[in-house]
Amino acid sequence: MGEFELIRQYFMPLARLHGPHSILVGPGDDCAVQRVPSDSDLVFSIDTLVEGVHFPLDYRPDYLGWRALAVATSDLAAMGAEPVSYTLALTLPEADEAWLCGLASGLGKAADAFGLMLAGGDTTRGPLVLSIQVHGLVPRGAAILRSGARPGDLVVVSGTLGDAGAALGYLESRSGVDAQSSFADEAFVLERYHHPVPRLGLGAGLRGLATSAIDISDGLLADLGHILEASSVGANIERARVPVSAALTRLKGVESLDYALHSGDDYELCATIPEADWMGAPSLLKQQFTVIGVVEAAPGLRLDGAAVGSESDAIGFDHFRREL
Amino acid sequence: MGEFELIRQYFMPLARLHGPHSILVGPGDDCAVQRVPSDSDLVFSIDTLVEGVHFPLDYRPDYLGWRALAVATSDLAAMGAEPVSYTLALTLPEADEAWLCGLASGLGKAADAFGLMLAGGDTTRGPLVLSIQVHGLVPRGAAILRSGARPGDLVVVSGTLGDAGAALGYLESRSGVDAQSSFADEAFVLERYHHPVPRLGLGAGLRGLATSAIDISDGLLADLGHILEASSVGANIERARVPVSAALTRLKGVESLDYALHSGDDYELCATIPEADWMGAPSLLKQQFTVIGVVEAAPGLRLDGAAVGSESDAIGFDHFRREL
Repeated sequence: MGEFELIRQYFMPLARLHGPHSILVGPGDDCAVQRVPSDSDLVFSIDTLVEGVHFPLDYRPDYLGWRALAVATSDLAAMGAEPVSYTLALTLPEADEAWLCGLASGLGKAADAFGLMLAGGDTTRGPLVLSIQVHGLVPRGAAILRSGARPGDLVVVSGTLGDAGAALGYLESRSGVDAQSSFADEAFVLERYHHPVPRLGLGAGLRGLATSAIDISDGLLADLGHILEASSVGANIERARVPVSAALTRLKGVESLDYALHSGDDYELCATIPEADWMGAPSLLKQQFTVIGVVEAAPGLRLDGAAVGSESDAIGFDHFRREL
Repeated sequence: MGEFELIRQYFMPLARLHGPHSILVGPGDDCAVQRVPSDSDLVFSIDTLVEGVHFPLDYRPDYLGWRALAVATSDLAAMGAEPVSYTLALTLPEADEAWLCGLASGLGKAADAFGLMLAGGDTTRGPLVLSIQVHGLVPRGAAILRSGARPGDLVVVSGTLGDAGAALGYLESRSGVDAQSSFADEAFVLERYHHPVPRLGLGAGLRGLATSAIDISDGLLADLGHILEASSVGANIERARVPVSAALTRLKGVESLDYALHSGDDYELCATIPEADWMGAPSLLKQQFTVIGVVEAAPGLRLDGAAVGSESDAIGFDHFRREL
């Protein structure tokens, strides 16, 4: 079997359709064709993952597939959008069957979990680089931007922060299991790195409620900084309120709050919500978020009232990577 | 100035808007937001260019920018679509200012020429790889697919074929000017390689006329082969009818037809049209195309009646690259 046939064999099944969909033409033509309902806006985002930069060398291909699609889909969650389709631009040094099978498996599991189908792509020989573009729908005019935060809004985050960042530390040091940490705690944070889950339901729940939102890919302080910059406001965050998992707190030698503030890769959501709207929000939604601070008119980001510097690049987890 | 600021400085102007547009949110948020008119379908395609595979090492960055966007936009032309926006996923080893300036210049000129605006992107440190996804609009249900060719349809191609392939030969051999060739002829074919022009007007003109269309990126025989396969038909092509430029004929003599049949990179269109529709087509459109053969019921591609083999991969200009 030739290389093309191998690639086709593993990727074409990712274009299978589940139930109602709006992809009229999928992979195999010059372009994909997607029908956008007249009451919806199209939203899309592209993310690139480079071996050794965004994931460890020799990273498991099924984990890579899940992670790559989750990272891209998280941007849809941050807009309050519902996923529809994705494209895959893949360069790889060789068409190794086991590796391709693993990648396709991870992509397929994530696509099924998030509700996406493969609509097109391009496969090329070259260094291992994946770019994934996701396409979603949001009711017309309802996309949640970064630019709407207003003084007095509450700053909220979903889930717990820092787990995936701590896991990446383990993976990069390759130090194995720390004898003083529990296996369960390490497994918990590692799973958070390997299989991030975009907060699609929470993002959709924030529509009409949040004045701004972003997914936390570069670290809470860096990403909240993007909201503040886009909204021309500032904020004060209370350290003690930043949600950290029990597992991360228990892990030996880990500065859990540092990870929670500075590390990315958890793909939780950070949003701003007017206090009155927060009070009236559905309790099921509120349970998924933690209020960590408040938006202020004075520019800049403060931790317990002390400025943390205006250069958001300097305080985030950053690897020569910036979404335009 | 930091690397991010450098990238931002050169790329953000590419998101400037010219006249009416449907990009509600461009670069700088989690996703771009595009409004698709209710009478239109969205079409999109992603293409990857790798240094040393799709363009020569140390290729001029402004030429690269033009070429990368032209190659992607050509897929919109093949669907009969009108361009709207594009995203850029760029990995590069270092943020060299002169190189970034050149790339942005080439992208900007091409975007202005083709009618596209930058809607988003991702820039990452890594080996030089560009992926560009283009987004266009086509009237609902009017996208021209590869799968509609029917026996009796005429096979037509736009422009002349083989020029860019011959130019690539010059570039790869780095042999300089051939003493027996005219400078003007070499300059002509080189320009065809450096600055391909997607046949957007011709593609739009084929809507409602063509039963199938494809852009010629891998060579006439390979790309027509994709139409035949998707349409479950065959075709016979007359060698003597394949359009070759006077410049290429003078440069390559009898070999010019080999380039015209087998080499890609010209980004002309190949389409099939029922004979009656061709006869009734606007003469301005017909002047831009040449009839080179006819679709037949018997599978396979024939040149002057002789089979050219069923393995389209084997006859095209192919470099481990396949659109899914």
